Amino acid sequence: MRASELAAPFPTVTAQTSALEAARLLAGQNLPGLIVVDEQGRPATVLPGTQVLRMAIPSYCQDDPALARVIDEAAADVFLRGVGNRTVVDPDATVLEIAAVMARSRSPLVAVAGRGQPMVGAITLDAMLDRMLDT
Amino acid sequence: MRASELAAPFPTVTAQTSALEAARLLAGQNLPGLIVVDEQGRPATVLPGTQVLRMAIPSYCQDDPALARVIDEAAADVFLRGVGNRTVVDPDATVLEIAAVMARSRSPLVAVAGRGQPMVGAITLDAMLDRMLDT
Repeated sequence: MRASELAAPFPTVTAQTSALEAARLLAGQNLPGLIVVDEQGRPATVLPGTQVLRMAIPSYCQDDPALARVIDEAAADVFLRGVGNRTVVDPDATVLEIAAVMARSRSPLVAVAGRGQPMVGAITLDAMLDRMLDT
Repeated sequence: MRASELAAPFPTVTAQTSALEAARLLAGQNLPGLIVVDEQGRPATVLPGTQVLRMAIPSYCQDDPALARVIDEAAADVFLRGVGNRTVVDPDATVLEIAAVMARSRSPLVAVAGRGQPMVGAITLDAMLDRMLDT
């Protein structure tokens, strides 16, 4: 069994695709990631869903001026660096905080629990994107 | 909108769950990852699907003695380190090589293309697990 036999058709995007369009394609078709191809159809890079989410965060903030006001790019970067590889979020975490944890840890899944408490539930990347894009 | 409102029930595993059982749960329910909880139901860690795949590779090799014979643990480690963040595989790549690329790059999606050639198609983590587990 070789890759050529396992390969199936898959939607592609280009470097010109907008972050929002990319996030909508991912969420709408429930894809695990996106493949960026060049003008000749050669794969340039593969973006896992968590990285598409990361690209979509600025669009989401722009749609929500209140949020954009409190988190400028510099602060967001410090914030992201602080997250580390943590994949458990507090029940009080905001959508932006959850998205940051997923993007930083490259995990399409986070557990929700208070410190030292049993798990309340989990949040998937798909659920997050659906919420952020209103799909 | 807070994490507590977004949190949904999600299957959990424990540290005693076997790698094969974990992979079957992930593939069977099409989950993006697994949540490991302790005896008190507190989330200990979250395993993205790509890392469950990595755990499942040894089981897969044991089911296939020919493969196990050529790749011992030390060689596999060198092999994994060599893969880097590449997410495009050659059409001739084997199942084990594709799995290694996914695990190493933490990408649940790889593109298939010859060097400098247009994309032949793509392989998802779900398709890989279904093939490895015969589900």
